[in-house]
Amino acid sequence: MEKILIAKKVLSENDRIAARLREALGATLAVNLISSPGSGKTSLLEKTLEMLPHGTRAAVLTGDLQTDNDARRLARYGYPVRQITTAGACHLDARMIENHWFSEPLDILFIENVGNLVCPTSYDLGEDAKIVVFSVTEGEDKPLKYPGIFRKAELMILNKLDLLPYVPFDRALAIENARRIHPGIEVIETSCNTGAGLGQWLAWLAGRAQNKRSAIQGEVEHALVAP
Amino acid sequence: MEKILIAKKVLSENDRIAARLREALGATLAVNLISSPGSGKTSLLEKTLEMLPHGTRAAVLTGDLQTDNDARRLARYGYPVRQITTAGACHLDARMIENHWFSEPLDILFIENVGNLVCPTSYDLGEDAKIVVFSVTEGEDKPLKYPGIFRKAELMILNKLDLLPYVPFDRALAIENARRIHPGIEVIETSCNTGAGLGQWLAWLAGRAQNKRSAIQGEVEHALVAP
Repeated sequence: MEKILIAKKVLSENDRIAARLREALGATLAVNLISSPGSGKTSLLEKTLEMLPHGTRAAVLTGDLQTDNDARRLARYGYPVRQITTAGACHLDARMIENHWFSEPLDILFIENVGNLVCPTSYDLGEDAKIVVFSVTEGEDKPLKYPGIFRKAELMILNKLDLLPYVPFDRALAIENARRIHPGIEVIETSCNTGAGLGQWLAWLAGRAQNKRSAIQGEVEHALVAP
Repeated sequence: MEKILIAKKVLSENDRIAARLREALGATLAVNLISSPGSGKTSLLEKTLEMLPHGTRAAVLTGDLQTDNDARRLARYGYPVRQITTAGACHLDARMIENHWFSEPLDILFIENVGNLVCPTSYDLGEDAKIVVFSVTEGEDKPLKYPGIFRKAELMILNKLDLLPYVPFDRALAIENARRIHPGIEVIETSCNTGAGLGQWLAWLAGRAQNKRSAIQGEVEHALVAP
């Protein structure tokens, strides 16, 4: 019981900081990428940074238990990147994000969570959308076994499509399983090796960023005309 | 601070139960398989059960957040199998093992942990050895990024060897990374599709089971002759 109360306290403290981050983001789109270790989040981000339209103000926060390998990989694309080393913790939390905050104005903030399909699910980082990355080598039953993240994610990226010929993986069943857990989940199928689906992913990001800017603009205009 | 104290209390309670389980195991070899989701633990166990020498008394406890898919897959091989559904928890703990205990005498107990490279690392389940399963699709940097489990595991199974031609994965570097974290870690490379390495894995199990029986027998004989 005591354990549950403490867990609730930790989460509500996290939620308070996340609300502050959401406010600080303003019109910046923030996406929180969650997956198993090795499903290809960093490669996807590398391709994404490479393909972002010229002039996009983007930045990356990347979380790992140890090493700054990912930050070094991602820093080559000319965008600001910060590594968050959790020193053993199995997820990012809102305070870690706040402690690594970018002060410059951004269009998109990418948050690459620790590789873990379970624990990051419960932590709001102030993001606009959680995105689950799931690779075809992991088996089509994963949405049923790890329903929490598939329920919370707006978008599932089904990655490593180029490995389909070599693994027993039923794509249609994987998507059906994800939609049994979360009927409205969007799905984009990608391969960072062939480039399949990356255009669709970039368009998704651009659409979400535009929607957020419009919504914030609407709020500002509403505030200006409100009595 | 309060959070840390509670975490310590939970772990020491876990350790007490794990000590009880270790006692109850007697001469039974218990192995705790830990990996990312989708690295092939269940397929490896299927092949293992298929190949166990006739007359081996084996059983499986398999953990998942949701579903009894794995237990159903594993039950086809004629050995007792119990599913532990953690209902959201990111690891097995000793109490879950105790609550699903097999009363029959066993030579080997396989414990398939929840797919997670972080949280299961801290929980002693009374096992003789933690084994980390790591597939070639996950990238050779995983031992550096998730050092905890590579430090604690006696054996690393490098799985899905048949996918090597299709992924950018440096086997030698992966093993070197694992040994930077844990110089004494044993390594067996396997493919459940081609059967590579499975004989070596079965021999490892047989050797460890034999060693444990001899050690326990030695203790019994020592106790009998002791004044």
